Amino acid sequence: MTTGVLTHMFMFEKPLGMVDTLPNLYEVKKKTRNEMTNEIEGWGFEFIETPTLEYYETVGVQSAILDQQLFKLLDQQGHTLVLRPDMTAPIARVAASKLFNNLYPQRLAYSANVFRAQQHEGGRPAEFEQVGVELIGDGTSSADAEVIALMVSVLKKAGLNNFKIAIGHIGYANALFKEVLGNQERADVLRRFLYEKNYVGYREHVKNLPLSSIDKERLFTLLTLRGGIEKVNEAKELVSSKEALNSLEEISQIWSALEAYQVTDYLKLDLNIVSHMSYYTGVLFEVYADHVGFPIGNGGRYDHLFEKFNRAAPATGFGLHLDRLIEALNVTEEATLQCVIYSQERRTEAISYATELRQSNKRVVMQDITGIKDVDAYTKKFEEVSYFIGSRKEEL
Amino acid sequence: MTTGVLTHMFMFEKPLGMVDTLPNLYEVKKKTRNEMTNEIEGWGFEFIETPTLEYYETVGVQSAILDQQLFKLLDQQGHTLVLRPDMTAPIARVAASKLFNNLYPQRLAYSANVFRAQQHEGGRPAEFEQVGVELIGDGTSSADAEVIALMVSVLKKAGLNNFKIAIGHIGYANALFKEVLGNQERADVLRRFLYEKNYVGYREHVKNLPLSSIDKERLFTLLTLRGGIEKVNEAKELVSSKEALNSLEEISQIWSALEAYQVTDYLKLDLNIVSHMSYYTGVLFEVYADHVGFPIGNGGRYDHLFEKFNRAAPATGFGLHLDRLIEALNVTEEATLQCVIYSQERRTEAISYATELRQSNKRVVMQDITGIKDVDAYTKKFEEVSYFIGSRKEEL
Repeated sequence: MTTGVLTHMFMFEKPLGMVDTLPNLYEVKKKTRNEMTNEIEGWGFEFIETPTLEYYETVGVQSAILDQQLFKLLDQQGHTLVLRPDMTAPIARVAASKLFNNLYPQRLAYSANVFRAQQHEGGRPAEFEQVGVELIGDGTSSADAEVIALMVSVLKKAGLNNFKIAIGHIGYANALFKEVLGNQERADVLRRFLYEKNYVGYREHVKNLPLSSIDKERLFTLLTLRGGIEKVNEAKELVSSKEALNSLEEISQIWSALEAYQVTDYLKLDLNIVSHMSYYTGVLFEVYADHVGFPIGNGGRYDHLFEKFNRAAPATGFGLHLDRLIEALNVTEEATLQCVIYSQERRTEAISYATELRQSNKRVVMQDITGIKDVDAYTKKFEEVSYFIGSRKEEL
Repeated sequence: MTTGVLTHMFMFEKPLGMVDTLPNLYEVKKKTRNEMTNEIEGWGFEFIETPTLEYYETVGVQSAILDQQLFKLLDQQGHTLVLRPDMTAPIARVAASKLFNNLYPQRLAYSANVFRAQQHEGGRPAEFEQVGVELIGDGTSSADAEVIALMVSVLKKAGLNNFKIAIGHIGYANALFKEVLGNQERADVLRRFLYEKNYVGYREHVKNLPLSSIDKERLFTLLTLRGGIEKVNEAKELVSSKEALNSLEEISQIWSALEAYQVTDYLKLDLNIVSHMSYYTGVLFEVYADHVGFPIGNGGRYDHLFEKFNRAAPATGFGLHLDRLIEALNVTEEATLQCVIYSQERRTEAISYATELRQSNKRVVMQDITGIKDVDAYTKKFEEVSYFIGSRKEEL
């Protein structure tokens, strides 16, 4: 294959999973992002920006994303770099550094593109924008409730009304598995079924485990622990370990704080959520909207990440997937444009007219008539066209 | 070297030339960017977003950036990808595709990070944000004048008052070199001196050329062709070819259009500008602000790029370097934060209070008192702190 052929082949192509955002969608994204970031700022979270490229050793290894999904490259010094796969690890790097003097709690926020290498054409996006927050250094259930309440508020400000947040706790399933199965390997298999939301596979697997029918029933019952907060009482019946009961107590506390925020209409309990194979250490949640197949956001408590940066600190946060949210919003936005077409002799007049319109927040294209090939075709896209040509001004 | 050592070494490190943007600078950037993009939208330019990663064959090769400055990586299919080194080539890829139906002139804009691999510690940034426009499919001098006038307007809206735009024309030096030197290799050497702004080197080199003293004088005189538009007359004396005279005529036309825009106070003529070794085909310009060593922006006409995407079209545009512009603005921005510290019993009251403040656009942190280790240290950063603790509300 010659370079010439390659060049032709790739002329208009983009790498797998990469997309262009054209003007109409750009407008929607900008408007939605602004509503979201304004609300996040209102809650006192401070935005930061981190580099697109990070050392693999620093951020790649610590991130919750599978290694095969990382875009890796070598820098000119031979170090491995990654395109950031999420923002939690970079934010942890910044927050754990001396920049913030360890003055916890720290509320940080971001709106940034993240990268996940894709294997298949037509699959998930390889680059997408996340808007999210991290509340660092506060281990109370008030902190968890705050980020969930903020997330509800952000989604509503973005214009989303039909959504549900499924709230679970990684500690509950872990403790139940420990009580019933005893060892970690067996627990990992079940956790993976939950992570993949493969409940049929889970049932089949449990059926074939060498367990008493009572224990099997306990594992089956876990799958039914979804619904209102009253399911916590059923969940209590199923376990006896302190770890399991503590996680239920934590959920109850968070739920009760969320009642004070008046957002419980958006919540449901789901003790089957796993979200990541290893990352979250406490409460965790996923946001679902009508007509969107994947969660439009998720989050939870991750109390071990900061240890890896030599500054142990509890932390909790959420990340929203802007494109999925916009898919759920199902809105379109088209900026209305006006056009002033002029001949050079009347340029000054045209400038005055356009400037006046722009001052009243109109979007106005100024176009020299000699720069247009087909005036009829060109002017179609504009809401209004004014002509400053020849000896008098005509308006169409 | 073991992984353990590496991990420790890289714990808080970022790749060469990469930076974090902390809250105060983030605020300034956001505010400045908003002013700029609003103005650009006001002139009817439409923003688009393109992927961070592009095929090397498509965008890397076509870009004006040196190959050694490209961040390259392989995708899982073995194709070479680049982190976009500029936005002009990606925008050309989009504009030349069928998405816009070839309905020229097309006015597109961007605000995006671009990437340039760096060799040295403490050198230039490897990732930085550009805000710019491309006016595609209009070969008139009105189009060139429009992008320059828009750039002035954008800079003023951003808050910059002391700046100069040096305007030149690649065709003039090219034609003069052709007249005097005859061959392209000799011209390339002189162009490189101008590109590097190495005027001492240029003089030395000219001195040693096997030319008549009159021709040497013509090449020396080129270096003096900077100042007001009246320098065009001096420039005319120096040349005789149609190509050279056309380029001066083009500059005069653009200048006269810019008089109609009332922005000539910001302009100076500079017939020594080269900007890139090969890219621009007509007028080209650089923006300088007080106290900033590098141009804060540049642009010009590039009529050959679209041929490479199989859709010949003239084009002109500018790109501004947001960080350098902010350096020139020399402003600081610090969001004032309020804090509501509460105990769980008074959470509801605290929420009402915070919600009310947020509705009047205050930024308000809500903090459970049990989540703070050192209240005195923590509360220092806030402008105002309210306490909802115990049986009555106290305000400090």
